[in-house]
Amino acid sequence: MEFPYRFRDPGLATLALTHRSAGKPNNERMEFLGDALLGALVAELLFEAHPHASEGELSRLRAQLVNGQALAVIGRELELGDDLKLGPGELKSGGFRRDSILADAFEALVAAVYFDDGYDACRQVVRRLFTPRVAEIKRSSKDAKTRLQEWLQGRGLPLPIYELTDSYGEDHAKIFDVSCTIDEPEPIRVEGRGGSRRAAEQDAAETVLRRLLEKKS
Amino acid sequence: MEFPYRFRDPGLATLALTHRSAGKPNNERMEFLGDALLGALVAELLFEAHPHASEGELSRLRAQLVNGQALAVIGRELELGDDLKLGPGELKSGGFRRDSILADAFEALVAAVYFDDGYDACRQVVRRLFTPRVAEIKRSSKDAKTRLQEWLQGRGLPLPIYELTDSYGEDHAKIFDVSCTIDEPEPIRVEGRGGSRRAAEQDAAETVLRRLLEKKS
Repeated sequence: MEFPYRFRDPGLATLALTHRSAGKPNNERMEFLGDALLGALVAELLFEAHPHASEGELSRLRAQLVNGQALAVIGRELELGDDLKLGPGELKSGGFRRDSILADAFEALVAAVYFDDGYDACRQVVRRLFTPRVAEIKRSSKDAKTRLQEWLQGRGLPLPIYELTDSYGEDHAKIFDVSCTIDEPEPIRVEGRGGSRRAAEQDAAETVLRRLLEKKS
Repeated sequence: MEFPYRFRDPGLATLALTHRSAGKPNNERMEFLGDALLGALVAELLFEAHPHASEGELSRLRAQLVNGQALAVIGRELELGDDLKLGPGELKSGGFRRDSILADAFEALVAAVYFDDGYDACRQVVRRLFTPRVAEIKRSSKDAKTRLQEWLQGRGLPLPIYELTDSYGEDHAKIFDVSCTIDEPEPIRVEGRGGSRRAAEQDAAETVLRRLLEKKS
């Protein structure tokens, strides 16, 4: 599949495909902006596609669509590896196949479209690439605590620990703060909040799951 | 200061100012999209303002500008507290003064502008509010390891531990992976990467700092 946009200024595309191993200027700064644009544009797609999903669910769905591994898959589909500019070391060690390099180049390309022809063009490219992916991804019917538990158990890791850290407000609108802690695969401790202890635990589990899934490959 | 945008559809503004304690529909989903839009728009401002800043620096600057506390300051300047729709419990416990509620309402308003009149209007509002803030914020002359060390020392916490976890590539384009671990104020372990061990440590320290600063108040 070809990248669904033809650049007016091909120099922007070249820059977006230039890895830091090839020297400066390279795509690192563009990647920062592209990542942010992708985040917003995929957020919009999910917002439209899932009118009843909670904020936590939308975040989780986005983390599934926008992460190093998922973007590397797109980078491969678009055959970005063929056009990457790499330093000689990365070239020899097969950098054009590396997930992180492909994902970064894809993000940088998104920013390059934005610079080349503005937001609408960028939005169109992202929607074209992500609409089918958004349609495929299902809202999990399992709650976050269950998913986190399964994720950890599947890796033979200990279960998370939930602790009530605070609760306040009046009885009919009480708010609960709960912490969720895991030690492996990396130490994570987050707080969740909700209108019940269970809801706060779900919120915290959601955040931990997101961190685990966001980890760049 | 008034919110620098007049809504065609005032219902969107009302929804953006409706906290979940007031029932459904509320601003939680809009906040998700608004947060993403803010991230992209402030990224663009920083990209323009700091043509020589690295990706890591841009991320750090954005985390200083877009976090719960900083957005609550804007929410207060805009006097959003006066127009918030809160449930009776939050109303009595002073929810209109709470950082997280003000920050969330501000984020939701950004999305409301996007829905009301599109990207350009939203961009204009965000640029108006953030351009002076971007101008004030300075690129720190101190490197990330120093800043992380000072942040932890200032709180009487132990220093981070850096460990080389991997290195690969040929001599002239070698890449180093380094982990940075802290136990307090919360357990964080991240990996950094760079063309030297020191650069990888800086990269990892930058990420840890960002996590610490990003923590919503």
